Amino acid sequence: MRLMLAIVSLGLLGAAVAQDYRKLDEDQRYEELNKERQVVAQKMISSALAENRAYGWLKELTDIGPRLTGSKTSLTAIHWAKAKMRELGLENVRLQSLMAPHWERGSIESAQIVSSKMFQGRELNVAALGSTEGTAAKGITAGLVEVSSIEDLKALGNKVKDKIVFMSGDMPASVAGPDNAYGMSNAMRTRGPNIASKQGAGAYIVRSLTQGNDNVPHTGNTTYEDGVKKIPAVAIGVQDALFLSDALSQDPTLQINLRLSAKNHPPVETFNVIGEIIGSSPNEVIVLGGHLDSWDKGTGAHDDGGGCMQALEAVELFKRLGIKPKKTIRVVLYADEERGAAGGRFYAEQALQSKETHIAAIESDTGAFTPRGFYVEQDFALEPLKAFLPYLEGAGIEFIKPGSSGSDVHHIQNTKALIGLSVNEQRYFDFHHSEKDVFSAVHPRELELGSAAMGILAYLISEEW
Amino acid sequence: MRLMLAIVSLGLLGAAVAQDYRKLDEDQRYEELNKERQVVAQKMISSALAENRAYGWLKELTDIGPRLTGSKTSLTAIHWAKAKMRELGLENVRLQSLMAPHWERGSIESAQIVSSKMFQGRELNVAALGSTEGTAAKGITAGLVEVSSIEDLKALGNKVKDKIVFMSGDMPASVAGPDNAYGMSNAMRTRGPNIASKQGAGAYIVRSLTQGNDNVPHTGNTTYEDGVKKIPAVAIGVQDALFLSDALSQDPTLQINLRLSAKNHPPVETFNVIGEIIGSSPNEVIVLGGHLDSWDKGTGAHDDGGGCMQALEAVELFKRLGIKPKKTIRVVLYADEERGAAGGRFYAEQALQSKETHIAAIESDTGAFTPRGFYVEQDFALEPLKAFLPYLEGAGIEFIKPGSSGSDVHHIQNTKALIGLSVNEQRYFDFHHSEKDVFSAVHPRELELGSAAMGILAYLISEEW
Repeated sequence: MRLMLAIVSLGLLGAAVAQDYRKLDEDQRYEELNKERQVVAQKMISSALAENRAYGWLKELTDIGPRLTGSKTSLTAIHWAKAKMRELGLENVRLQSLMAPHWERGSIESAQIVSSKMFQGRELNVAALGSTEGTAAKGITAGLVEVSSIEDLKALGNKVKDKIVFMSGDMPASVAGPDNAYGMSNAMRTRGPNIASKQGAGAYIVRSLTQGNDNVPHTGNTTYEDGVKKIPAVAIGVQDALFLSDALSQDPTLQINLRLSAKNHPPVETFNVIGEIIGSSPNEVIVLGGHLDSWDKGTGAHDDGGGCMQALEAVELFKRLGIKPKKTIRVVLYADEERGAAGGRFYAEQALQSKETHIAAIESDTGAFTPRGFYVEQDFALEPLKAFLPYLEGAGIEFIKPGSSGSDVHHIQNTKALIGLSVNEQRYFDFHHSEKDVFSAVHPRELELGSAAMGILAYLISEEW
Repeated sequence: MRLMLAIVSLGLLGAAVAQDYRKLDEDQRYEELNKERQVVAQKMISSALAENRAYGWLKELTDIGPRLTGSKTSLTAIHWAKAKMRELGLENVRLQSLMAPHWERGSIESAQIVSSKMFQGRELNVAALGSTEGTAAKGITAGLVEVSSIEDLKALGNKVKDKIVFMSGDMPASVAGPDNAYGMSNAMRTRGPNIASKQGAGAYIVRSLTQGNDNVPHTGNTTYEDGVKKIPAVAIGVQDALFLSDALSQDPTLQINLRLSAKNHPPVETFNVIGEIIGSSPNEVIVLGGHLDSWDKGTGAHDDGGGCMQALEAVELFKRLGIKPKKTIRVVLYADEERGAAGGRFYAEQALQSKETHIAAIESDTGAFTPRGFYVEQDFALEPLKAFLPYLEGAGIEFIKPGSSGSDVHHIQNTKALIGLSVNEQRYFDFHHSEKDVFSAVHPRELELGSAAMGILAYLISEEW
């Protein structure tokens, strides 16, 4: 690592002195560069922790309300973010207009047990999944078929015809990495309703994707193929899922009356919000971001208001510390990640058509918890990024590993590094896509260390790449 | 790392085959050993996370109440722990009797502003510090001298005579590592009252040591030298500390009436609680532990009930998975850490006199949060421990670094490794030594990953050292 920095330092400063002195000069330059970087890193950390600006902005943002694409409050938040970037003195502050799918939950979502002596009238705690269509006013009433995996569902074929499929498989608590557990189980929500619909089912209930044990339904998107009927689909709270399994074992003929007013509308205009600090090489861009849209349960404090405010503060830290960056340091708050990443895709398309080069893209979208490391998609970027670890440790960064960056920046092409912030996410799925994802669930120090980690990484890439 | 494991594997299995085949056998053995260890590590992680046993025990423990040395509830907890070890089938379950200092808060602690037109009668949120003596029934009433550091206090000399010293320096929020910030500032609590007393002060108020911004007083021990008067000393909530600074700037002659019923008693009998699984080399011991005593505010859920239950579960995981360890795997729940580590010292003394060898000692006492790494005191143990990282990563362990182990195991001599679990402690000082350190402040997954990390490390040391 020392060698690499020394070489870079030499390159930057273009030394051309006699051999005997060069060694000394290199060492001195290395030491000074090293020290300067440590000072900047330390200042970013202490300033973020002492001033808590991202935390304050997150309060303002979440006070606006939920930010589901197409909602009035999502537009309020977009304009708030644009005004905030202007207020902070960012340059080229702009909205990037794009079209995205528009879905509304509506005011009605209820699931009640009927046709059961034992459990008649019992209400279950459910929330419609994004993309689902509602029911007629009287709802759909049908018996249940319980399955615990996509494979089980497929094996049943048309035996689920006109039934309500109850997918009771869990997001396994025994898996240490919540992201891994989510990856193993989220097809039960994202793909299950489409499969059940093709097999003739009338509706779909999925156990909430969380490793916790409460009764809050965790919503999220589901996807129907073109031409497949968008059958009503809901998530159910974990405790009610356990209750329902038990009730079914006692009374297999119980039925559920499911009523939803969810509705898909025509695509709607929404916006990526962009601002930057122009670098001395203006067309070389380092982009930092998160997605500004959120689910309509809660106010998207962790997902991904926190990531947005971290990216905004990471850029603003350059201004706060009076650093004139070599590269353009840009914040992009992406639209519509939750319903399909239209914002991330659109930004990437536009970037390809511009004369800019995207040097690196950094995303924060795994909850505003204490940083642990960075994942990077490009193998050849691993070692150069690892060389930055000594400067990042103070912000909690212990590793640089190969891995996926994030669902927004992932679409950016021709870049040296697509990078995702990795955090301590043991608590993340307690809140994820639920009414519990609110401002009070975010800890200021944990959030602010993420701002600092992103700022330091952007600074080092800007200086060295 | 691979080479080291291969060598160890060879040593363990004592291969003595022809040269041509040996290479293959080594590789096969390495692979099998490697796989076996990964399987054990994975089982420990998934079992801890799925069964949440430490979390359940922590509920039982904290339901007993606070566990300050000398209190009735501390003895109830000691006997609960002994019974729990028996119930879990540990061997040689025993209490190790020792004497420790005995201090009681008593029922009265109040601080009220008097002699002030502007602030008359304002109550301040305070908590007596351990070792302090109470006041007469009418309290002590005096004017204040505000200082913000030990140096400032010393510089004032006898100008603080008969005054109440108000130490308003903060535990700096700008420092990323809470343990570092605590190390930088805790002399204001631990040493300040003794210094103020020697300079003639009548009492001492210290701003609570926390990086948070609430108004809960955070207690903790203070130390008076022999012969120095134990002047009344309290911690004050952060918001009241800020209020008091402001009030003093407006009305420098305000006085405070401080009333405390705190009292030092003669030393009292208390106990380390010990249980183990006897290894096939019974006199080679790996000890895991935390301290069972706690402050009387809250119920010591993070400090250090969580660490105790993690250590207990780490040992019990061997039984749960049917592993017969090579070394004796012992859990020690130390007495009296908060008032001076009498339990840790006593255990270490006894260990020196026994015929046992302590191979390694592992402590968890930095809050029951997500594991990040292990610190180790012995430099020569660093590389062998780093070789275990691939097995520990699943439990969140990203590093092995030189550093201090913990205030209990630190006293153990002639051991290969004194090891401390390092966690994500950004929230720790929100709770530390305050009424907020209760069961609900602990997250089950974060706690349980610590159990698994300790269990895996003990298993690997037992197998390889």
